[in-house]
Amino acid sequence: MIYALIMAGGSGTRFWPESRKSRPKQFLNIAGPKSMIRLTVERIATEIPVGRIMVISGASHADEIRNELPELNPEMIVAEPWSRNTAPCVALAAYKLRKADPDAVMAVLPADHTIGKEEAFLDALRHGADAVSRGDYLLTFGVVPNRPETGYGYIRIGKVAFSVGPDKVHKVDAFVEKPDLETARLYLASGNYLWNSGMFMWKASDIIRAIDRRLPRLGAAMKSIASALNTIEEADALRGVYQSLESISIDYGIMERADNVVCIPIDVDWNDVGSWAAVVELWPADKTGNVTRGQTLFLDSRNCVVSSNHRLATLIGVEDLIVVDTPDALMVCHKDRAQDVKRLQEVLAEQGYEDLL
Amino acid sequence: MIYALIMAGGSGTRFWPESRKSRPKQFLNIAGPKSMIRLTVERIATEIPVGRIMVISGASHADEIRNELPELNPEMIVAEPWSRNTAPCVALAAYKLRKADPDAVMAVLPADHTIGKEEAFLDALRHGADAVSRGDYLLTFGVVPNRPETGYGYIRIGKVAFSVGPDKVHKVDAFVEKPDLETARLYLASGNYLWNSGMFMWKASDIIRAIDRRLPRLGAAMKSIASALNTIEEADALRGVYQSLESISIDYGIMERADNVVCIPIDVDWNDVGSWAAVVELWPADKTGNVTRGQTLFLDSRNCVVSSNHRLATLIGVEDLIVVDTPDALMVCHKDRAQDVKRLQEVLAEQGYEDLL
Repeated sequence: MIYALIMAGGSGTRFWPESRKSRPKQFLNIAGPKSMIRLTVERIATEIPVGRIMVISGASHADEIRNELPELNPEMIVAEPWSRNTAPCVALAAYKLRKADPDAVMAVLPADHTIGKEEAFLDALRHGADAVSRGDYLLTFGVVPNRPETGYGYIRIGKVAFSVGPDKVHKVDAFVEKPDLETARLYLASGNYLWNSGMFMWKASDIIRAIDRRLPRLGAAMKSIASALNTIEEADALRGVYQSLESISIDYGIMERADNVVCIPIDVDWNDVGSWAAVVELWPADKTGNVTRGQTLFLDSRNCVVSSNHRLATLIGVEDLIVVDTPDALMVCHKDRAQDVKRLQEVLAEQGYEDLL
Repeated sequence: MIYALIMAGGSGTRFWPESRKSRPKQFLNIAGPKSMIRLTVERIATEIPVGRIMVISGASHADEIRNELPELNPEMIVAEPWSRNTAPCVALAAYKLRKADPDAVMAVLPADHTIGKEEAFLDALRHGADAVSRGDYLLTFGVVPNRPETGYGYIRIGKVAFSVGPDKVHKVDAFVEKPDLETARLYLASGNYLWNSGMFMWKASDIIRAIDRRLPRLGAAMKSIASALNTIEEADALRGVYQSLESISIDYGIMERADNVVCIPIDVDWNDVGSWAAVVELWPADKTGNVTRGQTLFLDSRNCVVSSNHRLATLIGVEDLIVVDTPDALMVCHKDRAQDVKRLQEVLAEQGYEDLL
């Protein structure tokens, strides 16, 4: 059976002031009328029934996820007692799913990305499940780039291992770091480099074997609590082992080192919604390039992003600004500095604005 | 006796969103902890007792002025039923004051300017009163310029007519329009050009004679209601004549045409607080040139003006912006476009935001 693991551990600092510690990006309606995590569930629910969708989040967000996604099995909403990046999250899900279903296949999906071409994505999910049924492959979905993006890691694909329907399953030569602009242009031109989307598929038993080999301490910790998983002892057991787990990503811990990694290229209008600047791709733009939500009024202003759901925002004679208004905090940021919204969190903490984090 | 007329007819559109039709600039605490009109009264009260200070405003603001300035004689707070620029306002005050005191001398002062050097200003007021006691002079206070300002009209002064204490009282050669930058530089270098501050002094009887001569219809209208002035019939009488009065400034209607105009140069750190950009001169700046009120936090941002009294305003990677936050409207404006805040009012009306005007 195919299951989904939706990873909802994001802290969402880049969408401040709308995102807060208590309300990270996956709970925001940034990509449409519904929260990003709900869109993620609804997108796959025709392929993977809600009863087989697991969500793992930080402990402080589990209740909100249950409220946001009442159709899910509450036992499939799992709280990590400490945040330890994606490798422990994937390991936990794999151990839980394999215990319930030794043949479990899992699609691993972030809770806070968007996909425009949903049918094509579901096709890829189906083909991915077919691919991993043929061997012990660790499959990653690589996004066909449409610009020389310097903000993502890339996957260099090799020869085609086999085909599933129209989808070619490639060997993966390497995972590579975020490139500079010149390198990103070469990657784009070569056709052999795809964006690392953070979406994966594999049999639970195969990723567990990879974890045992590449991250043996993580594997041992999971084995030590295996009997408690899927029982009322689980939460206590997690508290017993989680704090001392190494914080490491599944990309770095497993994918970059494994030799059985394959990749299905996908061209599905994917957006990782990495900062306020990304909503330019998601919200409609007026003819002067302004994209907005809420009440806004522009005078001689261009290429701005404005979210103002609580009062009228007026802009006069400005361009390339991001303006985000909330009841207790306002942010005005140059569009080129959208990544620094994350940095602002530290300044807020230093200046005594913890209540706004 | 010396009286003051404080003209409080301003609509304050340039300080939107803090200023509204119901709350124009003179009621705002832009220049300090108190409203501008209160600062105007307190500035002169040691020289002109509050019982001799008259305030004329639009009808919709008279109640708020009474609340704001309870120490004034309520009968000295006069509501114009229609706004007709400064000439009718001055004429009304002159007729009222002369009726009460045939020897009344009046200082005419805007309600919404600031003066840094208050003692020097009071000296000038005293010397002005002395000057107008010597003849039928229409006296204007001309501000010694400290920059080639293109936003003000100028007064070209001529030879010294006489001295009062250390102050020289000059003949006025001409009132000149707002200059271009090159001309403003010549004016500044010449030493013969002063900013037209809109502050005047004269005997009520002298300005009435000038009005009768230069604006005879205004004079006739005031004469027709003279018996009602300072009585309970006054408000009805004003409603009977005011609507049909020509809307004209005292500068254009009288000062630019009269031949008995004199000028006392003043160097008193005057500011007409003409737009949000002007508060740069009034509020303290931090070392990166940001001037603020309320809760603000800057990351790599320079030379901005921020007023945020209701929530935290954060700015990242921007410069030369004016950000003004209020409970129901937010404005982000390039500093060079501060004059366009006035233009925004029309757009707000067109777009159906009358409730925010």
